[in-house]
Amino acid sequence: MPCVDTWLRAWLEEDLGRGDLTAPALLGRHGRAHWLAKQAGIFCGGPLVAPLFRLLDPEMELELLVAEGQPVIPGQQLLRLQGQAAALVAGERTALNLAMHLSGIATATAALVQELEGCGVRLVDTRKTTPGLRLLEKYAVRCGGGGNHRLGLDDAAMLKENHIAWAGGIAAAVAAVRASAPWPAQVIVEAETTTEAEAAIAAGADGVLLDEFKPQQLIELVPRLRALALQRGRPVVLEASGIQPEQLRAYGSTGIDLISTSAPITRSPWLDLSMRFEASP
Amino acid sequence: MPCVDTWLRAWLEEDLGRGDLTAPALLGRHGRAHWLAKQAGIFCGGPLVAPLFRLLDPEMELELLVAEGQPVIPGQQLLRLQGQAAALVAGERTALNLAMHLSGIATATAALVQELEGCGVRLVDTRKTTPGLRLLEKYAVRCGGGGNHRLGLDDAAMLKENHIAWAGGIAAAVAAVRASAPWPAQVIVEAETTTEAEAAIAAGADGVLLDEFKPQQLIELVPRLRALALQRGRPVVLEASGIQPEQLRAYGSTGIDLISTSAPITRSPWLDLSMRFEASP
Amino acid sequence: MPCVDTWLRAWLEEDLGRGDLTAPALLGRHGRAHWLAKQAGIFCGGPLVAPLFRLLDPEMELELLVAEGQPVIPGQQLLRLQGQAAALVAGERTALNLAMHLSGIATATAALVQELEGCGVRLVDTRKTTPGLRLLEKYAVRCGGGGNHRLGLDDAAMLKENHIAWAGGIAAAVAAVRASAPWPAQVIVEAETTTEAEAAIAAGADGVLLDEFKPQQLIELVPRLRALALQRGRPVVLEASGIQPEQLRAYGSTGIDLISTSAPITRSPWLDLSMRFEASP
Amino acid sequence: MPCVDTWLRAWLEEDLGRGDLTAPALLGRHGRAHWLAKQAGIFCGGPLVAPLFRLLDPEMELELLVAEGQPVIPGQQLLRLQGQAAALVAGERTALNLAMHLSGIATATAALVQELEGCGVRLVDTRKTTPGLRLLEKYAVRCGGGGNHRLGLDDAAMLKENHIAWAGGIAAAVAAVRASAPWPAQVIVEAETTTEAEAAIAAGADGVLLDEFKPQQLIELVPRLRALALQRGRPVVLEASGIQPEQLRAYGSTGIDLISTSAPITRSPWLDLSMRFEASP
Amino acid sequence: MPCVDTWLRAWLEEDLGRGDLTAPALLGRHGRAHWLAKQAGIFCGGPLVAPLFRLLDPEMELELLVAEGQPVIPGQQLLRLQGQAAALVAGERTALNLAMHLSGIATATAALVQELEGCGVRLVDTRKTTPGLRLLEKYAVRCGGGGNHRLGLDDAAMLKENHIAWAGGIAAAVAAVRASAPWPAQVIVEAETTTEAEAAIAAGADGVLLDEFKPQQLIELVPRLRALALQRGRPVVLEASGIQPEQLRAYGSTGIDLISTSAPITRSPWLDLSMRFEASP
Amino acid sequence: MPCVDTWLRAWLEEDLGRGDLTAPALLGRHGRAHWLAKQAGIFCGGPLVAPLFRLLDPEMELELLVAEGQPVIPGQQLLRLQGQAAALVAGERTALNLAMHLSGIATATAALVQELEGCGVRLVDTRKTTPGLRLLEKYAVRCGGGGNHRLGLDDAAMLKENHIAWAGGIAAAVAAVRASAPWPAQVIVEAETTTEAEAAIAAGADGVLLDEFKPQQLIELVPRLRALALQRGRPVVLEASGIQPEQLRAYGSTGIDLISTSAPITRSPWLDLSMRFEASP
Repeated sequence: MPCVDTWLRAWLEEDLGRGDLTAPALLGRHGRAHWLAKQAGIFCGGPLVAPLFRLLDPEMELELLVAEGQPVIPGQQLLRLQGQAAALVAGERTALNLAMHLSGIATATAALVQELEGCGVRLVDTRKTTPGLRLLEKYAVRCGGGGNHRLGLDDAAMLKENHIAWAGGIAAAVAAVRASAPWPAQVIVEAETTTEAEAAIAAGADGVLLDEFKPQQLIELVPRLRALALQRGRPVVLEASGIQPEQLRAYGSTGIDLISTSAPITRSPWLDLSMRFEASP
Repeated sequence: MPCVDTWLRAWLEEDLGRGDLTAPALLGRHGRAHWLAKQAGIFCGGPLVAPLFRLLDPEMELELLVAEGQPVIPGQQLLRLQGQAAALVAGERTALNLAMHLSGIATATAALVQELEGCGVRLVDTRKTTPGLRLLEKYAVRCGGGGNHRLGLDDAAMLKENHIAWAGGIAAAVAAVRASAPWPAQVIVEAETTTEAEAAIAAGADGVLLDEFKPQQLIELVPRLRALALQRGRPVVLEASGIQPEQLRAYGSTGIDLISTSAPITRSPWLDLSMRFEASP
Repeated sequence: MPCVDTWLRAWLEEDLGRGDLTAPALLGRHGRAHWLAKQAGIFCGGPLVAPLFRLLDPEMELELLVAEGQPVIPGQQLLRLQGQAAALVAGERTALNLAMHLSGIATATAALVQELEGCGVRLVDTRKTTPGLRLLEKYAVRCGGGGNHRLGLDDAAMLKENHIAWAGGIAAAVAAVRASAPWPAQVIVEAETTTEAEAAIAAGADGVLLDEFKPQQLIELVPRLRALALQRGRPVVLEASGIQPEQLRAYGSTGIDLISTSAPITRSPWLDLSMRFEASP
Repeated sequence: MPCVDTWLRAWLEEDLGRGDLTAPALLGRHGRAHWLAKQAGIFCGGPLVAPLFRLLDPEMELELLVAEGQPVIPGQQLLRLQGQAAALVAGERTALNLAMHLSGIATATAALVQELEGCGVRLVDTRKTTPGLRLLEKYAVRCGGGGNHRLGLDDAAMLKENHIAWAGGIAAAVAAVRASAPWPAQVIVEAETTTEAEAAIAAGADGVLLDEFKPQQLIELVPRLRALALQRGRPVVLEASGIQPEQLRAYGSTGIDLISTSAPITRSPWLDLSMRFEASP
Repeated sequence: MPCVDTWLRAWLEEDLGRGDLTAPALLGRHGRAHWLAKQAGIFCGGPLVAPLFRLLDPEMELELLVAEGQPVIPGQQLLRLQGQAAALVAGERTALNLAMHLSGIATATAALVQELEGCGVRLVDTRKTTPGLRLLEKYAVRCGGGGNHRLGLDDAAMLKENHIAWAGGIAAAVAAVRASAPWPAQVIVEAETTTEAEAAIAAGADGVLLDEFKPQQLIELVPRLRALALQRGRPVVLEASGIQPEQLRAYGSTGIDLISTSAPITRSPWLDLSMRFEASP
Repeated sequence: MPCVDTWLRAWLEEDLGRGDLTAPALLGRHGRAHWLAKQAGIFCGGPLVAPLFRLLDPEMELELLVAEGQPVIPGQQLLRLQGQAAALVAGERTALNLAMHLSGIATATAALVQELEGCGVRLVDTRKTTPGLRLLEKYAVRCGGGGNHRLGLDDAAMLKENHIAWAGGIAAAVAAVRASAPWPAQVIVEAETTTEAEAAIAAGADGVLLDEFKPQQLIELVPRLRALALQRGRPVVLEASGIQPEQLRAYGSTGIDLISTSAPITRSPWLDLSMRFEASP
């Protein structure tokens, strides 16, 4: 995440505006604080806390007590901080907002991943991410045990209904993209019917996204699609989407490779964490 | 929101990366699309959609069918778009992500505000906001009928336990901030006990945040604090926080002025919206 | 002042352009220098000098000999520097420009503040500030013993003649702003007549700016406004503006709370300071 | 001035912060306004006003009534504006701050230039400029009839006492800079004694800055330096600095080419201008 | 290329610095100009010329006479421009520099692609690109008939000798990357020996880069690798690199899929183009 | 080069995009590497390598083995690196791209400069530089023993055919520029005929660019122009351009001061360098 410092600075400035009005009352003081979990969940975002506070106080000391992606219980200490009081106060909210949001995503992901345990299917995210936070939210999904789908419109091509209509069919759409894309770019086709799925494989798609198929349909369809792909000497990645959390397990045993879902990002509450200041040393 | 164009551009670039791989297949085509609500809720973010798509196609035409902050029902059309196919595809996800997130917040806010209807208490947000989205999330709270607390550390001073400890008491802390802050800046004190609340008023605080008091305590305390303030010829704004959604109504009748809660921002799922492409003209 | 490093970098680049042409002649050399006051006044900007030179030479050593906001006399040493010769030369002009400008403002402020000594009235600045330098100029005003008015259009609302005309009266204008502003935002009304001032208080304004009233008028008006405010259980901050420096004292004894003036920023000459290089060590 | 739009945007954001709190009260309204001079002086900055307001309202109409660099009298209308009320209010202060500051510089410059009228000497500025405003302040000097010295450390080399000491003499310093600088870069030497001035010419300097010489000394020195330069087949530009405004005329008749002074930028009050809103159409 | 406007602005500012010194002599004038090819080659960069000049004069009219990627002959007109004289002069050099550089790359690519005609092998570029120009240089390669390899370190993983050593073997390295990368990311292994190439296929690599193999070796190796891949039910992309231009054809008939070469970017001279001003209308 | 860190960061981000996919396989490891020359030439860019890698690993250790602008032979070690493996891999390509490009320019410059040895003529570059790299490319020219012409449109004025036509003649054009330019800015006139060259001198030009004159013409013309300049008491810099590399020597003995050529920048191949990882410590 090469730009993370730039983001942290911008987020601090969002909260600080023209400067913390209470800073003059804290000048010259030093303090200690720690973070507590107030809920059970998966902790995520810990490695961002030190760089954030060091933008405010380059001498800030921080000890992480919980490794990234690990479960925490209510009351558990997560990290310890020591440095300028004005920096502790100025960074508190931004750092917590970030970690609570990411930990909420990791926690929700872990719950879904556990649901699929033993199925041999990988749970992956989508491009439904909060504007400005995609890389970090996708990182939180990995911390929760999930995998990532493409990171943006530029690192794999997904052809949807409208692309296909405009290009004049699946084969034409796949060919148009292959002609201009870098060779390592995968081409995925979104299919809503069996016919579309078969046409995608015939057109040489690297992946097929099977949208809103029922588990029963997939149980029948998946082996047929794999056989078709085999005939063409080219394996295909099969992905199911449009699935409610409670149906995950049913889909997990259909033989597909991936289940993609936006739920851990779009439907998860923040994990409740707080920062406690300690009696001055 | 003076920077909104800068943000929209950055969010588009987050999704586009080095460019949409499917764009060459769409070059030169035009299309139409509309947005649908897939859930009931409050629509928010509509006015951001046109500027976002116009960064991709300055000629994009957009007709908003729902006013900001209005309720929508499943299946309802929200807006209509017409322009370059490549721009419609490139902007779709970012625009929806933004509107779904903001509409989720507005919807959750409206539910809480309705809970308080008739109490004469204003529901306001906090500084628990997603990094990078504070102004827009606070705008969504207003669209849902809530009010805003301070926007950052620079436009009002809130003195917490640690400020008070470092400054050597409430009176000293208030005085230190007043001495350096611009005169219109309000000074608010967070109180966890009755004694602290009274000391805050004695120190001339403009507002007192009564954190995790029980409704019964407030019913007794609020009039006493108001009387104290009156004696000093200076009214005080009384705010309650740390309240679970199901208790809102109980707090609403304690005589306080404000209830602050982060729930609409930290615990709301996105509102489900989608974009449908239409048969080409 | 969270962005100060960004500003310092931009200001250095303004002077350096594509690079100091004399730098190659200085490469590898180290030097010492000190700053001298060439005029009496209040020194301001000292804490900015080290961060500025460290952008050019991270090892630059700097010893501040005068505390911020303290008076200096002609010939007095202000600070001592030691580091790369190329950095000393490249930063000299920008650092001096900044400190001379800010010290000029602090000096002019201190003169006016002294004029008001013992009156119990606070001298505050306005939004008439040099583009790009508002936070630093307002800081210089504080160093000179003055106070700050609002920092921008977003941290308090001042309703002027035109707002009132467009909104349809003072009460309507105040109500419109209160409805959308964050609750801690103060609402101030600019009044040019006694009637307007009274209407402002009736409308619940937090402050009234009494523009271009004469001292005699204020002596009669101020107690009346305070009584009106008291009746409504809500104190009001009374501010006078449009005052010539030579009349300050007359206004100081009218009972108002604040006198706002742009003079220290818009009419002050720079304080003359210079940097002297010392014989090489 | 290629970056002027970037600057205008940053300056507006400095005043707007998170947004004008009074904007909601103005939404949807249009208005008219004009600018008035409240003092006599030289108007400068007019061409910046339209681009500034158009960042807030792209449809803003503006009619300039006074050409850049022209004298104005108290009460004179300078320009007329028509557009969104919220944009008029949001841009007013920033636009006036800029124009008042620049007009103050142009006015002060014009007074000094008039002093020198008929002397055949050009008045030029220095690098003592307000951080962030150099190009505009130097533009204001031109509007007031002055000329510009170098714009930064990169477009001409000025060798001062310390350069000379570090390089081991004037000849060595000039040679070191010539060896690395682009060929069109002029090399100027600052001289405080006659000997230094002669050495500068002997070293092939393109210009000599004669610092704090008395008029009598210059009358004798200037022809001697010109003769020396002629012998070497290379004319030299002779510049005097360190001059009090009241001595300008005395220096004007010494035969030098340029007088450089920072006074119009470091010692000029802003020119008083104001914006008046008109009864709505 | 979403950021192209930002780049064009930065490149103009690189040449303009504090502003074209000749601009005042051109103010208010309009002119016409055209571009001429002075050498035969492939024209590339045409669509960038209008946006570049419109940053200087939004009314600039431009007619492109040659389509992107088309051959041109000496003396051929490439495009025609009409607009403000100051804008024509200010943009000339930057626009030509860009188009001459890109056209040089397209021309060199086309020569190599022609060499390979009929071989069924695709010529692709590498990550050896001029800092700051990667997307445009890769675009120029496509204009010359070549294809693109990955665009950066983030859109496909290439495992080299050192990755393999650190990870403890090819299989471990491939597994480590697959575990964390988004699923559509291809994993390519660079092989310098037959054993390594076979191990890469056994490890499930999507592509194998055969570095500095001789044509004879490849003729024997390629079918063996393909058979191995077929056994594993997973096709592999075979790429040869480290090839001198004169050997291209020999490699073209070895059965590989891709030849990657940096030569069109690192070894191509600019194509000579010039801009001619026409007698004023 | 004040912005060099900003550039290095942007160039790294161009290659890294959303992050090196192989980084997770390298986490926690350290490594050593060195750079080798694979061709003979002049090494340039060495001092940029450490700052570039330190953006990725602040603890990266680097030992430069070859001074800037020195010749290197095939197989020679250029520098040694030690630090985090992930940083070595992430920075490798960008650092090499930069140094190979700059070394190619220095190498090509040195060859031309050697051609002119003993002529007393200085070889200088032009404004034909790769967009975004001007300062570094001009620095590479200096490393190769050449000199720099003006750095941009703002630090000297060159009047060409079209300026002269628009201004109504050479004298008018020179006068117009002198009137508005800072006094140290040189004015150069491009002449294509003897008459134009003489007119330029008569108009007081500081330099005359003699474009596409033949050596024979120059041998006759140069002394005449110098005499003319001498009569006017003002030396002139005479520059020849439009010269093929093979004619350099012929031009070198015509008495001109400068030969300007873009060839080292527009026609030089990169110098082949590579980075070798060493067996882990």
